[in-house]
Amino acid sequence: MAALNQEHGTSLSWVAVDWGTSNLRVWAMDDTANILGSTESPLGMNAIAGDPKLSFEAVLIDLIDGWLSPDQRGLPVVICGMAGAKQGWLEAPYCDVPARPADLAKGAVTPNVSDPRISVFILPGLCQRGDSDVMRGEETQLVGFMAENPDFSGWVCLPGTHSKWAHVGDGMIRAFRTYMSGEVFALLSQQSILRHSVDDRWDDGAFADAVRAAKLQPTAFLHTLFTVRAGALVAKDAASVAPGAAVLSGTVIGAEIADVLSHLAPGEDIALIGAGELASLYQAALAVHNHKATPKDGAAITLAGLGRAYGVVSGATR
Amino acid sequence: MAALNQEHGTSLSWVAVDWGTSNLRVWAMDDTANILGSTESPLGMNAIAGDPKLSFEAVLIDLIDGWLSPDQRGLPVVICGMAGAKQGWLEAPYCDVPARPADLAKGAVTPNVSDPRISVFILPGLCQRGDSDVMRGEETQLVGFMAENPDFSGWVCLPGTHSKWAHVGDGMIRAFRTYMSGEVFALLSQQSILRHSVDDRWDDGAFADAVRAAKLQPTAFLHTLFTVRAGALVAKDAASVAPGAAVLSGTVIGAEIADVLSHLAPGEDIALIGAGELASLYQAALAVHNHKATPKDGAAITLAGLGRAYGVVSGATR
Repeated sequence: MAALNQEHGTSLSWVAVDWGTSNLRVWAMDDTANILGSTESPLGMNAIAGDPKLSFEAVLIDLIDGWLSPDQRGLPVVICGMAGAKQGWLEAPYCDVPARPADLAKGAVTPNVSDPRISVFILPGLCQRGDSDVMRGEETQLVGFMAENPDFSGWVCLPGTHSKWAHVGDGMIRAFRTYMSGEVFALLSQQSILRHSVDDRWDDGAFADAVRAAKLQPTAFLHTLFTVRAGALVAKDAASVAPGAAVLSGTVIGAEIADVLSHLAPGEDIALIGAGELASLYQAALAVHNHKATPKDGAAITLAGLGRAYGVVSGATR
Repeated sequence: MAALNQEHGTSLSWVAVDWGTSNLRVWAMDDTANILGSTESPLGMNAIAGDPKLSFEAVLIDLIDGWLSPDQRGLPVVICGMAGAKQGWLEAPYCDVPARPADLAKGAVTPNVSDPRISVFILPGLCQRGDSDVMRGEETQLVGFMAENPDFSGWVCLPGTHSKWAHVGDGMIRAFRTYMSGEVFALLSQQSILRHSVDDRWDDGAFADAVRAAKLQPTAFLHTLFTVRAGALVAKDAASVAPGAAVLSGTVIGAEIADVLSHLAPGEDIALIGAGELASLYQAALAVHNHKATPKDGAAITLAGLGRAYGVVSGATR
């Protein structure tokens, strides 16, 4: 763990934590949103839940011990993500949508800790009844996004294994939809008969064609998947076959986006939170339908969301 | 292997074989479609392709040796299925749709055999260009269905791991669509996060609701899948949660049927070939949309299709 960077002449005010299923990230923060230090660990919820010798508090203290002075008392540690799940540190019951950022912060739970130097706040996730859905962690990114884009009205996309689309407007998270696209793509490309048709080849045009077709033929999904395989068997020459990875990816992401577009009201915008190849694919797929969305870095937005929650919980405890 | 049943006073005229990926079935037939004997074996295409000590001819002779007299010469053996695949006995190139039953029989290939007692005819599969698709084996069931239902016009469903729907009319197989529904259901229920939500519980009403929803919300497939998981997390009490297996099955089969119904022209019928639980689920799903389709036994229909092909190839060789 690096020493704290105190070039701003400020001091540690709180600690931000994004505690996921398979890893966690921790930031040392001052009171004006400067990052004084950061670190990460593979000890996500699953690792801790699976090892009786590990505890959430011990894992956290091990990571931030060097940041804490001996006379520190009750330093706020604000955590989002799976630390609040049933199998986590302490369950933070879901907030129902529609929800405002302050509702989420006020729903934070405070586990008992044995180390007097820290006070821990674990933020809740969001749930939706009726069209059942849940999220835990992404809601904090949404809060960060809303803090930076207060006038945004529309759908915010967070691509991932289970990608989330949230309907945001008037300072509220109104509703959201999770899509199993990432997991479905992984299962199909690695474990189904389509694995024979997916290799390193890629073609942007084939991806775009598949995205377009997914919207034109909204019911055809389970059939279109098989054409990825059949295309190779029917082709006169192998070189004419569109790369299976591009067609499959375009079919899956395209089906997801076709559904979101059917919910988009006139005048609403689309925003994209994420980085790397997956976010670029969503950007390209949205561009096929003439929606311009530049991916915004997820870590910075998580931190903005945790900062917003810190503002609420620290006010509440002073 | 049972001895031949010659109670009809007739004698062996030909042998029918359905040679699949993972097993094969063989029938001894007289000239008036009576079954004189039958047997089966687990030595499907994959087992033979994977064992250099096995050959298709040796496997076949081993099964039918007791049916053949020493002075038998050139007894027609008519085979459908994977024996005609690239990895099979001898590749029988696909026939293009639209195709008539006679086109399929005329496309049969005749591998060289070392045993003079038999003549082997391997039937081709069907392929479709443009909206790429292939089948190998099911086309013979379609031929059998058409022989028994010459005036049928509409879509014939053959449920399975990769279920096939064929558009049949005017004595032709006009087009067809394969759906990966069975494989997608298996992957999702066994290997995705939804495995936690799928158990032995079942509810016909929840299945029907999911089938109905799949048609009402044609783009929502990848989202609806996640609600199977989220429903359990959001529920106030576990007993109120619809059985995941029924919802998932209804969602997948419902999505397939919604697509087929979008292709069904006015006045066209739907027929169902198959047996057991899977065929019953398709029957129930079709009933949700007011289509009555009683499953017809697949083995009898395969045999009818092989008989039709035998009529053509034996005429051609006499």
